[in-house]
Amino acid sequence: MKRVLVTGASGFIGRHTLTALRARGFEVHANSRGLAADPEGGVAAHPLDLLGPGGPAALVRDVQPSHLLHLAWAPPSRSWMTLDNLSWAAASLELYRAFAEAGGRRAVVAGSCAEYDWSYETLCEADTPARPRSLYGCAKNAVREVVAAAARQSGISTAWARIFFVYGPHEPPGRLVPEVADALLSGRVAETTHGRQQRDFMHVADVAAALAALLDGEVTGIVNIASGSCVAVRHVVEHLGRLAGRPDLLAIGARPVGPGEPARLAADVGRLSREVGFSPRYGLEEGLADALEWWRRAGKPD
Amino acid sequence: MKRVLVTGASGFIGRHTLTALRARGFEVHANSRGLAADPEGGVAAHPLDLLGPGGPAALVRDVQPSHLLHLAWAPPSRSWMTLDNLSWAAASLELYRAFAEAGGRRAVVAGSCAEYDWSYETLCEADTPARPRSLYGCAKNAVREVVAAAARQSGISTAWARIFFVYGPHEPPGRLVPEVADALLSGRVAETTHGRQQRDFMHVADVAAALAALLDGEVTGIVNIASGSCVAVRHVVEHLGRLAGRPDLLAIGARPVGPGEPARLAADVGRLSREVGFSPRYGLEEGLADALEWWRRAGKPD
Repeated sequence: MKRVLVTGASGFIGRHTLTALRARGFEVHANSRGLAADPEGGVAAHPLDLLGPGGPAALVRDVQPSHLLHLAWAPPSRSWMTLDNLSWAAASLELYRAFAEAGGRRAVVAGSCAEYDWSYETLCEADTPARPRSLYGCAKNAVREVVAAAARQSGISTAWARIFFVYGPHEPPGRLVPEVADALLSGRVAETTHGRQQRDFMHVADVAAALAALLDGEVTGIVNIASGSCVAVRHVVEHLGRLAGRPDLLAIGARPVGPGEPARLAADVGRLSREVGFSPRYGLEEGLADALEWWRRAGKPD
Repeated sequence: MKRVLVTGASGFIGRHTLTALRARGFEVHANSRGLAADPEGGVAAHPLDLLGPGGPAALVRDVQPSHLLHLAWAPPSRSWMTLDNLSWAAASLELYRAFAEAGGRRAVVAGSCAEYDWSYETLCEADTPARPRSLYGCAKNAVREVVAAAARQSGISTAWARIFFVYGPHEPPGRLVPEVADALLSGRVAETTHGRQQRDFMHVADVAAALAALLDGEVTGIVNIASGSCVAVRHVVEHLGRLAGRPDLLAIGARPVGPGEPARLAADVGRLSREVGFSPRYGLEEGLADALEWWRRAGKPD
């Protein structure tokens, strides 16, 4: 029996993992502070606050999971610098310990490309050193180091998912795709940077499916979760303009690029494609069309 | 007003810091799970379990410290590999966050020479990379990384004390000096390794005084807490034999050296001596004499 505890289950990525996990035969137990009683047919809801006193231990006691997919963290919009990162790191360590001591067998924990040294243009699990710039990246990387040592110690099969740039339905407002989509659909001018910086964008349904595949396999250590295709941000913005039928609303170059924004952050996806055996379903244009259609129906960001 | 919260205050090092801090004009608030109500004249006791739910936040709320000396961790005898390290790392992060948010100004957190790459023979704050081998060293180093980033973020003046090899009164049993002292004082044979491996030993009263000096100053970042004198373990054992008047009981070489035990772990103490301005009071022979006298009076290890 495969019984998985998913934390952050009502978050942007988490909510997309539930179906992917059920499709792989997992009994799915979803945790999130604000979770509805039955978020989706066939999923058990555990609306417990992981940051509350004793939260992680109580959650593991309730669920007794064989598998763990730990996605919960501070909301991305304000997580880069907040001291909340310390509490999420603490809760993550307590959760991993409780999982290990309750007989857990296999864990996947969400890391981030923000753990890498961004002076490298292609970020590879084996070769690129960790050198996080933000408190967020630093806290994630520190949890990774301890979890890796604890995994060796306890024999729990554990993978660390370094997630790159994600877009799609339910993306929180304030990020590139939601901002541009919202402007275009409302008939407002969408101001962006020059957009020459290159990033790896992956549709959230593919991210969720990749995480489910990773958890359902045996690959351990760091695994990049990305599409393998690194494109100029400008390319994404222009696609959205065309898809919305309003390329006239794009004001590319109207905003300055942030200081220290790297020119290129490509992901080496060799481990994900060859070892995990995962290939994304969405190409960029198709994925952006899906996201834009969702924003059109949703009317507003979540 | 300087009000310091000392965690691990009834531990081997912690109990020695209380007098040193009072001598520097601190109002001392001592925390330890098993602490007596008034551990020493003029010290306020807070016997709260840092690992209990909400422990760190409650402790900071009670004390409202301007300064923090965080020493608490799993007992050293079983801390190298236990999953307790995850909970102590978690509690340390929660404590630092609570301290920052309650308006704390200056913190010193206890790290360890176990964070360093032990393939280097002289361990220097600026030059020697971190490469912990144990879960203990890994958890300490991970806390250090997050605390350093949080310190930059919050503007709290913070030093990280990498403590080397400590001996003296109240040392927990099972370690070199207590084991040899106990055997010699009981008339039993003291079996040791060949003792050619070199380490930096510092008397616990000096360690405590160094920590108090560090906390009472403004030096930030990593600071080695060590004597600056690196001697063969054999030298320590032979001193103890002479001091006890029973060199005949020493069986040097009767035990194998553990696998991967490095030949030499010297500490660069340039920061401690020049920047903090601290010099140890005890030479090795004088310090060992003090320790042996304490074991003689105590009769038994704690």
